[in-house]
Amino acid sequence: MKDFVLKGNICFSAKDGTIECHPNSYVVCEDGLCAGVFERLPEQYANLPLTDCGDQLLIPGLSDLHIHAPQFSFRGLGMDMELLDWLNTYTFPEESKYADLGYADRAYGQFASQLKSSLTTRAVIFGTIHAPATTLLMEKLEDSGIVSYVGKVNMDRNSPDYLREADAKASLDATEQWICDTCSRFANTHPILTPRFVPSCTDELLAGLGRLSEQYKIPVQSHLSENYGEIQWVKELLPDAKFYGDAYDRFGLFGGAQPCIMAHCVHSGEEELALMKERGVFIAHSPLSNSNLASGVAPVSQYMEQGLRVALASDVAGGDTLNMFAVMAGAIRASKLRWRLLDQEVKPLSVDQAFYIATRGGGEFFGKVGAFEPGYEFDCVVLDDSTIVHPQELSLRARLDRCFYLSDDRHIAAKYVRGNKIL
Amino acid sequence: MKDFVLKGNICFSAKDGTIECHPNSYVVCEDGLCAGVFERLPEQYANLPLTDCGDQLLIPGLSDLHIHAPQFSFRGLGMDMELLDWLNTYTFPEESKYADLGYADRAYGQFASQLKSSLTTRAVIFGTIHAPATTLLMEKLEDSGIVSYVGKVNMDRNSPDYLREADAKASLDATEQWICDTCSRFANTHPILTPRFVPSCTDELLAGLGRLSEQYKIPVQSHLSENYGEIQWVKELLPDAKFYGDAYDRFGLFGGAQPCIMAHCVHSGEEELALMKERGVFIAHSPLSNSNLASGVAPVSQYMEQGLRVALASDVAGGDTLNMFAVMAGAIRASKLRWRLLDQEVKPLSVDQAFYIATRGGGEFFGKVGAFEPGYEFDCVVLDDSTIVHPQELSLRARLDRCFYLSDDRHIAAKYVRGNKIL
Repeated sequence: MKDFVLKGNICFSAKDGTIECHPNSYVVCEDGLCAGVFERLPEQYANLPLTDCGDQLLIPGLSDLHIHAPQFSFRGLGMDMELLDWLNTYTFPEESKYADLGYADRAYGQFASQLKSSLTTRAVIFGTIHAPATTLLMEKLEDSGIVSYVGKVNMDRNSPDYLREADAKASLDATEQWICDTCSRFANTHPILTPRFVPSCTDELLAGLGRLSEQYKIPVQSHLSENYGEIQWVKELLPDAKFYGDAYDRFGLFGGAQPCIMAHCVHSGEEELALMKERGVFIAHSPLSNSNLASGVAPVSQYMEQGLRVALASDVAGGDTLNMFAVMAGAIRASKLRWRLLDQEVKPLSVDQAFYIATRGGGEFFGKVGAFEPGYEFDCVVLDDSTIVHPQELSLRARLDRCFYLSDDRHIAAKYVRGNKIL
Repeated sequence: MKDFVLKGNICFSAKDGTIECHPNSYVVCEDGLCAGVFERLPEQYANLPLTDCGDQLLIPGLSDLHIHAPQFSFRGLGMDMELLDWLNTYTFPEESKYADLGYADRAYGQFASQLKSSLTTRAVIFGTIHAPATTLLMEKLEDSGIVSYVGKVNMDRNSPDYLREADAKASLDATEQWICDTCSRFANTHPILTPRFVPSCTDELLAGLGRLSEQYKIPVQSHLSENYGEIQWVKELLPDAKFYGDAYDRFGLFGGAQPCIMAHCVHSGEEELALMKERGVFIAHSPLSNSNLASGVAPVSQYMEQGLRVALASDVAGGDTLNMFAVMAGAIRASKLRWRLLDQEVKPLSVDQAFYIATRGGGEFFGKVGAFEPGYEFDCVVLDDSTIVHPQELSLRARLDRCFYLSDDRHIAAKYVRGNKIL
């Protein structure tokens, strides 16, 4: 079933960052991999089953590189505070509920179902400190057909009693057990090490996580340089660290041997950025979250020009929606306000750039993902924009651009991940 | 049919700016006016027909005080420029098509249909320079049941040949004729004088429009202090004007005798604001448009504290959506970035404030509109949020807040304008 042809209006980001549009063309999937896009179907594929998508749009699936699954339950609520107060007032009490597997079952079921219905084909996700609930989340994600990395969160300090692990050892033991339980269990769902952020983790815990990452070859995700109060707190906690990212790096949690994602990087300085570039750290740019929590706006187009690895993220529930098109539009808008209000040296994000980071930028974390190029894994979203009315004919490119601002899960006609049709 | 009772979860902004929530209560409509909200239905209304909305939310209809109907056709497209280039490249060519009544019929039909399906119950709208198309738009809006003011646009300079009236006299004659044709023709649709903006109108034209406003008692709408390039251009065109708004005021087009709406006011100075306050000019705050076109962010909470009349607006197609909840969320986000990036003296807009300007703020332009208080016109949107999943029970206020970020026309179960059920 993983060998087939789709016919339709095909759009994706080329390596050079521009959007390629192929009206009324063929894209071939062979054994779950893309074999290419063709104006006329080559003879060698003539016998493959063909689905004619008519006038619909075919785009690569979108990658969301930072989501808090337990926060999905309060998306759109409680966004009247900055980060640290928001964590204590809304986030931590909600996350503590996932000690209850019944609650987790209900809440994570809703989350996985909505993620499946969204534009997202690949996701990197925070759970909570609770290993059983996190494993349950992984089971639900595996059932969804989406490819994901999921983290049991580590927290052993500066957190309320009801959401803190007993000590570093207890946290590490539970994490190692959870890695062993899950690392080979699923086809599409993998564990990722997830220290919440420096303030929540003792040095001992971070050091242990670095060892687990090396030993089990597990990637790492965390938060970095999101908010001024947070950055100041890290400075006070670790006065020796040269910069925030250095506090991860000294424990082997900042890319290099194992892939690493750092969410936000709104206020990263030159040294931090240089090290991220050296280590190949992925930046999960979370514009809706950074707007909602008044954190600021990362200079994304500059990061891209500097050759950093930039991906896009919903960051639910700092962000209020899983709709990655809305996140793209939010990224563009935020970059325009940054340009106008703060710094005209950094250009606003273009539509091409926003689509690039939402597809290829984040896809790179998963390997060859995010484009219809030979050898890329076949992730595809089929969009039916026929209900978005317009008084006259539009170019394919205009239709695509319009989808970024106007479409949502209503307009998804089908969704493929690794060549499997999951919607 | 204009006397009835609705039962449900009732929310609206009180005069003091806070949101009142009345779970499981009654709101009474008598002859198209609200008679009040009651926990128990008073005996005197016991015989009125009652609709039980169950667990749904009842809110006042939203007012959108600045929309360009002809630009609806390219919402979500072409937002890679600032205002003046955007006008010349995208907007003016599109608006010229409305010389063709066939095109106008198709495009305005789509616009009116979408506006009817939206949260908006009251709107103030720009047409184009073409009187026949603008009258057609008014007919379609009248059919929709929405209450609106609609403007035939005036432009007699600094516009391309294909979208410029021959001279001031021709523009004024056509406008006066259009006023006479439409001012008494509709129950819910009214003409409003609409000089596009100072750069598009000669002094002679502005002076004539001021006379028409006085003679026919017609309100006025235009644009003000949106973009730096525009403001500079106005200075060069009218070096004697004390500030941009003064260029309207000297011709009687800046409030006072007749109501006036000025869109944007992103960069208004103290003198301009003082005159707006004196004249009761409504500010149509257009946050999505001001973000999309990189114009900036108006200090809205400060305007509200200063006692200015602030309303909310989609400004399609500078803004990309008619969904006024999305505009509210965009206003809050933009205000947070303004606070973070530019000026911590001006507080971010709260959810309560955003709802206030979207209901009462804009409603005031239409009289007693935008609240469930005795004597207010009965505009109501019934929201069914049951498909927005949540793992646990939420307070009514939390459900309302969540709707602002997560709901759209899918969640509208019914809509009333002046006591008429239009959806």
